[in-house]
Amino acid sequence: MVRNEDERRIRELLDEMTVAEKIGQMVGTPPHEAVDELNAQIRDHHVGSIHFGGTPHNTPEKKAKVANEAQRVAIEESRHGIPVFLRAMAEHGHAAVAGSTVFPQQLGLAATRNPDLVAETARVAAKEMRATGVHSTSSPIGDIARDQRWGRITETFGESPYLAARMTEAMVEGYQGKDLSNDDSVLAVTKHFPMYSEPVRGEDAAPNEVSEYTFRRVHLPSYSAGIAAGTGGIMPCYNAINGEPVHGSKHLLQDVLRDELGFEGFVLADYRGAEDLHKGHQTSGSLEESLYRSISAGIDILPSGGSEYTEIILGLVDDGELSEARIEESARRVLRAKFDLGLFDDPYVDVAAASATLGAEAHRETAREAARQAQTLLKNEGDVLPLSTDQEEVLVTGPTADNLAYQHGGWGNVRDPEPLGTTVLEAIADTVSDETTVTHEQGTEINEIIDINAARRRAETADAAVVCLGEPDYVHEFSQSTLEEAAEDFPSRVQLSLPEAQRDLVKAVSETDTPTVVVFITGRVLSTPWIADNVPGVLMSYQPGSEGGAVADVLYGKHNPCGTLPISVPRSEAHLPTRFNYLPHPDYHGAEGSHTDSYDPLFEYGHGLSYTEFEYEDIALSDTTIGPAGTIDVTVTVANVGDRTGTIPVELFVRDVLSSRVTPVRELQGMTRLEIGPGDHETARFRLAAENLGVVRDDGSRVTEPGTFEITVGDQSANFEVTGRFV
Amino acid sequence: MVRNEDERRIRELLDEMTVAEKIGQMVGTPPHEAVDELNAQIRDHHVGSIHFGGTPHNTPEKKAKVANEAQRVAIEESRHGIPVFLRAMAEHGHAAVAGSTVFPQQLGLAATRNPDLVAETARVAAKEMRATGVHSTSSPIGDIARDQRWGRITETFGESPYLAARMTEAMVEGYQGKDLSNDDSVLAVTKHFPMYSEPVRGEDAAPNEVSEYTFRRVHLPSYSAGIAAGTGGIMPCYNAINGEPVHGSKHLLQDVLRDELGFEGFVLADYRGAEDLHKGHQTSGSLEESLYRSISAGIDILPSGGSEYTEIILGLVDDGELSEARIEESARRVLRAKFDLGLFDDPYVDVAAASATLGAEAHRETAREAARQAQTLLKNEGDVLPLSTDQEEVLVTGPTADNLAYQHGGWGNVRDPEPLGTTVLEAIADTVSDETTVTHEQGTEINEIIDINAARRRAETADAAVVCLGEPDYVHEFSQSTLEEAAEDFPSRVQLSLPEAQRDLVKAVSETDTPTVVVFITGRVLSTPWIADNVPGVLMSYQPGSEGGAVADVLYGKHNPCGTLPISVPRSEAHLPTRFNYLPHPDYHGAEGSHTDSYDPLFEYGHGLSYTEFEYEDIALSDTTIGPAGTIDVTVTVANVGDRTGTIPVELFVRDVLSSRVTPVRELQGMTRLEIGPGDHETARFRLAAENLGVVRDDGSRVTEPGTFEITVGDQSANFEVTGRFV
Repeated sequence: MVRNEDERRIRELLDEMTVAEKIGQMVGTPPHEAVDELNAQIRDHHVGSIHFGGTPHNTPEKKAKVANEAQRVAIEESRHGIPVFLRAMAEHGHAAVAGSTVFPQQLGLAATRNPDLVAETARVAAKEMRATGVHSTSSPIGDIARDQRWGRITETFGESPYLAARMTEAMVEGYQGKDLSNDDSVLAVTKHFPMYSEPVRGEDAAPNEVSEYTFRRVHLPSYSAGIAAGTGGIMPCYNAINGEPVHGSKHLLQDVLRDELGFEGFVLADYRGAEDLHKGHQTSGSLEESLYRSISAGIDILPSGGSEYTEIILGLVDDGELSEARIEESARRVLRAKFDLGLFDDPYVDVAAASATLGAEAHRETAREAARQAQTLLKNEGDVLPLSTDQEEVLVTGPTADNLAYQHGGWGNVRDPEPLGTTVLEAIADTVSDETTVTHEQGTEINEIIDINAARRRAETADAAVVCLGEPDYVHEFSQSTLEEAAEDFPSRVQLSLPEAQRDLVKAVSETDTPTVVVFITGRVLSTPWIADNVPGVLMSYQPGSEGGAVADVLYGKHNPCGTLPISVPRSEAHLPTRFNYLPHPDYHGAEGSHTDSYDPLFEYGHGLSYTEFEYEDIALSDTTIGPAGTIDVTVTVANVGDRTGTIPVELFVRDVLSSRVTPVRELQGMTRLEIGPGDHETARFRLAAENLGVVRDDGSRVTEPGTFEITVGDQSANFEVTGRFV
Repeated sequence: MVRNEDERRIRELLDEMTVAEKIGQMVGTPPHEAVDELNAQIRDHHVGSIHFGGTPHNTPEKKAKVANEAQRVAIEESRHGIPVFLRAMAEHGHAAVAGSTVFPQQLGLAATRNPDLVAETARVAAKEMRATGVHSTSSPIGDIARDQRWGRITETFGESPYLAARMTEAMVEGYQGKDLSNDDSVLAVTKHFPMYSEPVRGEDAAPNEVSEYTFRRVHLPSYSAGIAAGTGGIMPCYNAINGEPVHGSKHLLQDVLRDELGFEGFVLADYRGAEDLHKGHQTSGSLEESLYRSISAGIDILPSGGSEYTEIILGLVDDGELSEARIEESARRVLRAKFDLGLFDDPYVDVAAASATLGAEAHRETAREAARQAQTLLKNEGDVLPLSTDQEEVLVTGPTADNLAYQHGGWGNVRDPEPLGTTVLEAIADTVSDETTVTHEQGTEINEIIDINAARRRAETADAAVVCLGEPDYVHEFSQSTLEEAAEDFPSRVQLSLPEAQRDLVKAVSETDTPTVVVFITGRVLSTPWIADNVPGVLMSYQPGSEGGAVADVLYGKHNPCGTLPISVPRSEAHLPTRFNYLPHPDYHGAEGSHTDSYDPLFEYGHGLSYTEFEYEDIALSDTTIGPAGTIDVTVTVANVGDRTGTIPVELFVRDVLSSRVTPVRELQGMTRLEIGPGDHETARFRLAAENLGVVRDDGSRVTEPGTFEITVGDQSANFEVTGRFV
């Protein structure tokens, strides 16, 4: 939002500021343990922002106090009184601060297929951040999940470009609210532009190896949506694309991001992203050259480096390598963000109120609702679920049953003081009746046996066994897992199978006659064919966050599950990539039948069971023929033929039957949710615009070609024609 | 070779020919069983070429007779007397004709690191083809091996762009000789332009999903080399690249192939490649549209379709969709090939001589030498190899020990009459002394147990056990394996591990105390960590062709192995891609150490043991600094410190330490071979041109950037600088 008055004041400030002061606005500092040092950076070196990672200052009071003190120094002890910009890396709530409400990771949020609810989680997270003096989050993540091995796949909205785009825009709108200057809004930094998530080998930060077509067709739409929703910031990815590291790519940060997508906010370098030009990619020879290259490419803010970087950049300006105009361009963007956030009016927060805001009852209920709607029931043979709350004895076992760190997942991980949350074990104990004994026998660590026989013995006498399996909080090269050995042992990032210890545990338990349910608490989806074949109940819980109660709500039927896989579960690593929207290709050369099957997942995209049953009926189209600028309305009736109320996410897929470029066998193009009572039916309504179905060209434009399009909703399908003479 | 006289005659012919007759030159027919039908196509429908796949007419006499009769009809019974162009798909010898010499598949040839020998195999293959009246082969394959799952990886020269380029040019030169009109030369059709070999999921014909940078840096160089060597034809790949099927891509077949790479020969559609535009890629709505699109894009010859296609194409010309000039352009290229091949002088062959030529003693010795030099000794713990020819008893077991089809691999597979060749079992029996008993107990089929206990019992009493494992002849979607069940069962193309039956067999045998050697006869490299850890001797034989004697030569020390892996052997499918020339990327974010290891193969590219030992010494560079157009000479001394003569392929790798685009951690840039006596040493000499080290740009040009380059040869390394002011 550009206000004329703000513009005038920015102009005045820039006229008065020295080059060094302008450079200061481009430079951030991490939150040094010593507050004096932090404040010296602001006061003596013009550093314009603080980038909060995890520790220190990890309680609401400490965070708010540090924030207020930094603002005081900036305003009272610096020449122009420019407030400091405080950013956090809060992807799923203000999780690096103890007492905060921790939401499901994005993959879980995507499973809800509920953009309104996702926006609501972002609003609550924004409130908790702003209460501690933080103005911005490095969220949402627009990256499309393309390799199930990648350790940060939990942070994505899954494999559909359409779903990720809808969720990214919802989250941006949730964080930023109607007006950034409201004291419950934060500025969103959508990341990791333009794609982080198709690295070679699934290795973090390895080159994204895709064609221009795939880049534009698959990866760019969610960023385009985030920008259209008004994201204040964009963070580039660490990777190289087409041989060029994004942090040093003028093509991507200027030509694509600004000229093509029209982005007007600031570009925030990822932590060490600029430095990786020499440290990782070897396309630069020194820190000085890396700063030169990244700023030349279009980086506006470097999150760390503080006064050291100010000096280097000043040298680059003095030597004529960087123009003052280039510096001013970035300083202006940062100042505008500070005005938009209302920091020039009042940057201070109420320290006393911070604690009460974080983890407030209503916030936790939002988190629990999000986690509930995320729960994805993968298998329910013989209606083993829901469990009765009146059973005599239930065994809860497995390494993820009673562990908040695993439940939260990465980017947060407060250990001291204890973070807020309810584990699955605690939640089950809270849920069952007084008559039920909940026995807990952990059985194994993530990758080590504790006592499987004890778990088996308990299972033998129990009426049901809940086996909580999964991964540690981090499974990638950042390797800050609370499980120290995760880096070398399981999960080896390349493996999608469970470690042997967990496989032995679930076999031992399920081989008793006791009804067994596996709960997966995991950032990635895992290839577990044995469990899929042999265990009657399988619930995918993702990394649900602080509210383990959501898992218990589903296990005991207090919530009828409606989560839907936002990503395909591959049969094994050998079957990668496994994606529902693959491109068709020639087959059957000279043979009747073939063992090619380009999509053969263990559980497919969109899979998710309910405690009731639904049937699709009567697909209807408003037209059978539209022009290339036309729209078409699609309705499908969904009947609840079971015996309890349920919610069903309804997804619409489109196939462009004939096109000048190869188009996917199906692509998601619409979604809605219906809550339907038993015996009732509801109508799902979609509107498709032909222009959104166009074939993507290398320049980013779309051309809607004449021909047949096939629509699929559930088991219903119908065709329509797009007319037109010109392509 | 363009002769003025030929040009004049081509001009005269084209002036006289009707459009339909010109179209006939663009159209081929498969070799119908009924010769009358074949001849009717030529006589009545102007069809200009015959494309021999496998059957029928699969003996030298039959093939030569059919060829002569087709020529007679074309010359005596058609209006212009234009001879017919006869092509085969002879990738590793004239293998679809019984009695032919069958060479190792290209992956094995690449292991020799001996371009002269590879050229010699092509010369021999050309002689055998030409003796049967065949004028052209769909070979060599320039595709770079990028996914070890892909079922046609055996047909490639491996994963190094440099190695593939050197081998591709050698093979083109070998086939074509000094003058195509010589009656022992055939025209080479280099395929599958511009890349077939990085299909998504390893699925045959799936889209090649790579960046423009990787396309130009990795995939294009071997085609460029084949064109520079004068390949008469180019065959496009089935795949889509950047969303565009290559058979319909004017960008690739015109802009890149002709304008950029300067190719002047003909473009031959792959079998069903044009038809796949509507049948596979769905970028065309009908056969008519597919023919229109492929001819518009630049296809000159359609190998099948005959008179049916002539009619359709004639309709396209009549309707004004295709110009007569476009038709004439292709007809001219085909006529020129026929003149170049000397067919207008004398297209007939000596039927009686054909049989004597195919499989001649000298030819088989060339094949055996190629197969010998391909043998790659992966492991030789405790010098288990070579075996003594005087042992009392040797067990030969395993499904590939006595099977010519598996030994040959794909594209050939004559079954009736029996093809020529010696199996490994037969060769071992031929090699050992009269005192040795060779016992054969097959143990298993490829994927089924026959009698493992029998093999174990035999192993217990034997002095050595040779366990021949591997894959069937075809492991891809063409699924024409002689093993009928291969399509559904093992090897499932996605798996790189051996089937359980074979794993059980090798465990049972090696668990006896008998010294055990595994021989892999396989098109792909397999992930077999148990064998690598537990079996003392491991020999990679690839698909060696007709001469199983080569395997015995190595097993019994008659040949000192010098084969070198042209491709990395991955630890498992989860570790894909595994390539020695990967691009470096950022790592160690926030952690001491990391479990990222971008290259962790079971056996690395270039691995291969000898029965002697070598040491590298004294790397020396002619200069330490050169200009961007300079050259540098590199020498390295290699000493044979063992006790027998041996040959060692010596490879030189270069790393561009700092570059504007991310460059590989190392790239092969030179190779040579040294034969060294025991206690002797020899000098390996390389010349590097700075311009060949340049960074590849999207327009295909290279720019040699100033900076440090690191050279590695064996364990020796040295740096030099390229100077320059401009980039």
